[in-house]
Amino acid sequence: MSLLTVGTVAFDTIETAFGKVDRVVGGAAMYIGLAASKFTTPINLVSVVGGDFPEKELKYMESLGINLDGLQIKKNEKSFFWAGKYHDDMNGRDTLVTDLNVLADFDPILPEAHKKPDYVMLGNLTPDVQMRVLDQLKKKPKLVAMDTMNFWMDVAWDSLLKTIQKVDLLLINDEEARQLSGEHSLLKAAKAILKMGPKILVIKKGEHGALLFQDKSVFFAPALPLEKVMDPTGAGDTFAGGMMGYLAMKDRLTKDNFKKAIIVGSAMASFCVEKFSNERMKELTTDMVKLRIKEFEKLVKFGAPL
Amino acid sequence: MSLLTVGTVAFDTIETAFGKVDRVVGGAAMYIGLAASKFTTPINLVSVVGGDFPEKELKYMESLGINLDGLQIKKNEKSFFWAGKYHDDMNGRDTLVTDLNVLADFDPILPEAHKKPDYVMLGNLTPDVQMRVLDQLKKKPKLVAMDTMNFWMDVAWDSLLKTIQKVDLLLINDEEARQLSGEHSLLKAAKAILKMGPKILVIKKGEHGALLFQDKSVFFAPALPLEKVMDPTGAGDTFAGGMMGYLAMKDRLTKDNFKKAIIVGSAMASFCVEKFSNERMKELTTDMVKLRIKEFEKLVKFGAPL
Repeated sequence: MSLLTVGTVAFDTIETAFGKVDRVVGGAAMYIGLAASKFTTPINLVSVVGGDFPEKELKYMESLGINLDGLQIKKNEKSFFWAGKYHDDMNGRDTLVTDLNVLADFDPILPEAHKKPDYVMLGNLTPDVQMRVLDQLKKKPKLVAMDTMNFWMDVAWDSLLKTIQKVDLLLINDEEARQLSGEHSLLKAAKAILKMGPKILVIKKGEHGALLFQDKSVFFAPALPLEKVMDPTGAGDTFAGGMMGYLAMKDRLTKDNFKKAIIVGSAMASFCVEKFSNERMKELTTDMVKLRIKEFEKLVKFGAPL
Repeated sequence: MSLLTVGTVAFDTIETAFGKVDRVVGGAAMYIGLAASKFTTPINLVSVVGGDFPEKELKYMESLGINLDGLQIKKNEKSFFWAGKYHDDMNGRDTLVTDLNVLADFDPILPEAHKKPDYVMLGNLTPDVQMRVLDQLKKKPKLVAMDTMNFWMDVAWDSLLKTIQKVDLLLINDEEARQLSGEHSLLKAAKAILKMGPKILVIKKGEHGALLFQDKSVFFAPALPLEKVMDPTGAGDTFAGGMMGYLAMKDRLTKDNFKKAIIVGSAMASFCVEKFSNERMKELTTDMVKLRIKEFEKLVKFGAPL
């Protein structure tokens, strides 16, 4: 099944306790595409880069089944650039530089062939840009998922709520869920958010796993304890890409498939953080993915205690 | 099977976002006893209180199958008293008062009948006092578990390491595991700690669940998302009590039973925090416990994704 995704394709300069990398490839749509392409193709990617973005990286994405007809290349401009430094515990980070460049006036224009997607993953971007993508669709997708961040809650509250209302599944982290709902308890936050439009909510808790709320039930996917978290950049996008790629592959939106999908998302994210940028994702074989998912099964499996 | 436990029986004054309670009953051994007695009896409790401790609370413990022959009652002295205030997010707390009182010169003297326990749970106390309990045993127990805290790492490092060396199972929280091992990754921390003596390590992460390390495998028990966490006091002790009570009841130390035991511990702890002091624990019926454990099973159960 086809998956349409919109989001950034960018350069990142990243510093963590394990080192520093300069102007490596990044961006939500890049991470989503890499993870999703392990499960389904085509991934129709809508984004914008400058003339400075390496041709080699674009070719690599295409080799995975990522269709770049919707990627605008602005030859005389520069790609979006982000620089950040993670705290030693990896749970927080400081943004050092944000150069919007080509992203400043990004208008996502969908090629005709991308207007009838089966599945849609709206990567974190201005809610208005996310909405512009939905407005161009000519057929109702089977599932529309959306990521966002606290920044849009601060500066674009009204458009954010309008966009959230249009999606089936919302993916946010725990702090964002608290800010969006005004509730501290994640259970109460989920109840409030599920009244805003989405039928399904995923709350990501980073190294503490992820919660899935659908109907009145809650499911928990653990994070795999890792020896070394080298670079958390892109983990949330990789989670989203793995989840949506898996759902598109299964193409049956049962409650159980959503549970499995967030396990798969967690597994993909656990790879992403093991190296800088997309290095680890580039190494993945199908067998490595299968083995990692098995590790997640073992991590939480137990017999009935009573 | 019999469970011997040593720890505090005390008064707590607790303030959280949901209210304040004054001089309510608390203490590690009290919480351990209440939770463990849901699964096994007798619980042989070794502790000390002053003449001010309510007779009614002692009678209540006895009614649950908690044997108090090892509880010293110092008529003319005062019980251990702790006062603390939790931060609004419940993840941190400030200690306002610690009056050791009877605890200052506590020497745990085991009645003869308590010297051959099947299972032992050493609640958080000076490591020397914990060791004094082990020194009096006349038979090797099937399992000795121990709780401790960062305070003893700061002020009693050598005795702490000596006591840890003597136990089969160590229970600590994530920050304590990091301090004890000097490793940030909990996986690396666990490897280091399992070289210090214990064969099994449980790392409690509060609202983020608990990890169980045994042999070379890791298991994760989630925490149940709750609408309201009213008072976290005693949650860790209740976890330990539920875990050890369950293991004593099953009386077969298989890898799978340890997994089930930390699910049971998590379930008991999820009750404990729903009201102040031991109020919620006093309301529990066997059916409520069974239902809660079923909720944990549903929370993490999923079919094979691939």
